[in-house]
Amino acid sequence: MVQYQPQLDRTFAALSDPTRREILQRLGRGSATISELAEPFGMSLTGCKKHVRVLEDAELVSTEKIGRSRRCALGPRRLQDAHDWIEGYRQMLDERLDRLDRFLHQSEGEER
Amino acid sequence: MVQYQPQLDRTFAALSDPTRREILQRLGRGSATISELAEPFGMSLTGCKKHVRVLEDAELVSTEKIGRSRRCALGPRRLQDAHDWIEGYRQMLDERLDRLDRFLHQSEGEER
Repeated sequence: MVQYQPQLDRTFAALSDPTRREILQRLGRGSATISELAEPFGMSLTGCKKHVRVLEDAELVSTEKIGRSRRCALGPRRLQDAHDWIEGYRQMLDERLDRLDRFLHQSEGEER
Repeated sequence: MVQYQPQLDRTFAALSDPTRREILQRLGRGSATISELAEPFGMSLTGCKKHVRVLEDAELVSTEKIGRSRRCALGPRRLQDAHDWIEGYRQMLDERLDRLDRFLHQSEGEER
């Protein structure tokens, strides 16, 4: 019954950390090396690499080794899967409210 | 520089597991006890309780102890924070594409 969507699991897990969300925002302004990413956060290179690896596994970031440094850039994913899941959930909540609303109106009618 | 949004962290973390996403979908069809939730997944009660606790911490599910069982229902949250973050990210990607597009058109003009 459980729908396995490993890509969606990885997307939501990648977005569940504030530093990783900030890294994505930073890369939105242009590519950066691991050191350039780590510096404003006062983060160790090792810590930064770990975050970048999680983003890379979720295909949100791509990296390229250039000389002695690793350049990071945003991947092409538009978070369509996460977007669709959340939209589906919100729609389900709306439909529940509509049903409740109809039920309450119906009960009111019967009371008259 | 990192924006602490613990609620958003918990939301994305809660959604990063397929069983928890299915529990939310199931509760969308109506409230259920822990046993009723666990059964279709062939899950242990302990395992199910853990998932429900994560959803409760993210305020996506509310629970109420009734007699010997615990009844679970969807919380009122419409995932607005997660929705807004993802929309912001998609908009940022679109703006980057627009800039690239303008840049390419400009370069073409200069080549003529």
